[in-house]
Amino acid sequence: MSLLDRIRACQVYDPEAYCPFLVDGQSVGHVRAEAIVELADFGEVFVFDHGRILLRGHIQGFQARTEAMASVTEELRDRGLVFGWRDEAYPVGVSFHEPPLFDMERAAVPFFGVRGYGVHVNGWVDAPDGPKMWIGRRSLTKPTGPGLLDQMVAGGQPSGMALHENVIKECREEAGMAPDLAATAKPVGAISYLTTRDEGLRHDVLFNYDLQVPEDFTPVNEDGEVAEFMLWPMVKVLEELETRETFKFNSALVVIDFLVRHGFVDPETPGYTDIVAGLHG
Amino acid sequence: MSLLDRIRACQVYDPEAYCPFLVDGQSVGHVRAEAIVELADFGEVFVFDHGRILLRGHIQGFQARTEAMASVTEELRDRGLVFGWRDEAYPVGVSFHEPPLFDMERAAVPFFGVRGYGVHVNGWVDAPDGPKMWIGRRSLTKPTGPGLLDQMVAGGQPSGMALHENVIKECREEAGMAPDLAATAKPVGAISYLTTRDEGLRHDVLFNYDLQVPEDFTPVNEDGEVAEFMLWPMVKVLEELETRETFKFNSALVVIDFLVRHGFVDPETPGYTDIVAGLHG
Repeated sequence: MSLLDRIRACQVYDPEAYCPFLVDGQSVGHVRAEAIVELADFGEVFVFDHGRILLRGHIQGFQARTEAMASVTEELRDRGLVFGWRDEAYPVGVSFHEPPLFDMERAAVPFFGVRGYGVHVNGWVDAPDGPKMWIGRRSLTKPTGPGLLDQMVAGGQPSGMALHENVIKECREEAGMAPDLAATAKPVGAISYLTTRDEGLRHDVLFNYDLQVPEDFTPVNEDGEVAEFMLWPMVKVLEELETRETFKFNSALVVIDFLVRHGFVDPETPGYTDIVAGLHG
Repeated sequence: MSLLDRIRACQVYDPEAYCPFLVDGQSVGHVRAEAIVELADFGEVFVFDHGRILLRGHIQGFQARTEAMASVTEELRDRGLVFGWRDEAYPVGVSFHEPPLFDMERAAVPFFGVRGYGVHVNGWVDAPDGPKMWIGRRSLTKPTGPGLLDQMVAGGQPSGMALHENVIKECREEAGMAPDLAATAKPVGAISYLTTRDEGLRHDVLFNYDLQVPEDFTPVNEDGEVAEFMLWPMVKVLEELETRETFKFNSALVVIDFLVRHGFVDPETPGYTDIVAGLHG
């Protein structure tokens, strides 16, 4: 699988198969057309109008919307349509920097195709024999991508927390890292994608950080979400991406972004311009 | 002007105002609808079909197409419709990494709205009092953006030259730099935009490089294309971008890309996700 194939694997979306989900006249997500029937029982929460799903207009304000959506997502969970419940509130709105219209359980984000946000931290070492990257293998108990390869540290962005606070929290939980080292993580951009997965529609923005760790630092997982850590030369990281199906779909894009920004992928590579643009699809 | 405004200034495009330009059934550019009348005299070169302009099918092969287009562009120059003639052959095709369908004079690229390519080199210094960037002021004799601010080194990508060779050539011509230092320029990605300018439609990909130069290096222009060089702290570069109209439209995007990749623009900045995605519009 070429790097470009990995990008295209994150661009699987047929607009015809989805219905827009609107709140206060603004599109906040997309629900799979086949799943609409599951929402028909919630006539007190939704209106169905010309192939669109609207949150009823009398449900106004953050708190009321959050409660109405909670009643829906809990029922969808009980029906087995929303799985991997996490008890994590995710903000839902039209963009990251505007106040959210409501909070919703993270596990329901793909069902409603609303935007998800995360922080991903590339941990790397400037070793004498060349730069290396810390790669984590996800725990087999993770609801998405169990056993797959990931950044040293990565986590969803919950409601009500600043990005850099979340980075420090996740660095502690996932890699046992002290806050003063975690605070040196440098924001380096973001990637985005809109793609169909088993769990539903993923329409995410991942905020990326580079964190150069000392040679004598070894990540130690504290929350059980990482099965093991490996320190790989960049050539091995690139080879793994190009030859094996071992990286989580979105974590692969974060690694590709790192490889591009650090010059490990040459601009003479066929498809380079599509690779770079595709990281922001 | 916010950083996001600068991005949006590079997204001025109304598809209704342009006609696709096709060669061998493949779209390679867009000509402003108002300008079609100027091409009506070239019936031996073009066919006009349902709002599209097609290179005549009997003009086959790289050489024949290049000659046919040269006769057109020279006439357009004589009519004053293509200006700033450079005698530089630009490759025209469907993507950067596929063999070009023909070569065309660089000055005619915006008239036909075909893809243009360039290399832009961010020259920066890791000074004891913080990182600084070398900024060039374009010569007043440049056909586009005279007197405006630019990267330390930037140049169009001509036909038949590798990107890294072009970087070394431009570093010599624009900054008087020795090849061994220029060869340390690191590819860090690309930006792209599609926007309407005085000269026509600009649909470009810029391949970006970061080049850390020693503190005792001072660029010296050799080809008359740079009026002066300034070494600015990054905060001044950011402030200049946000408060003054002094950067060339596309060079501003290259600087913003640098600021994002190096963490000088914080992801908590409103519009951050649109800024990052907009660099690849």
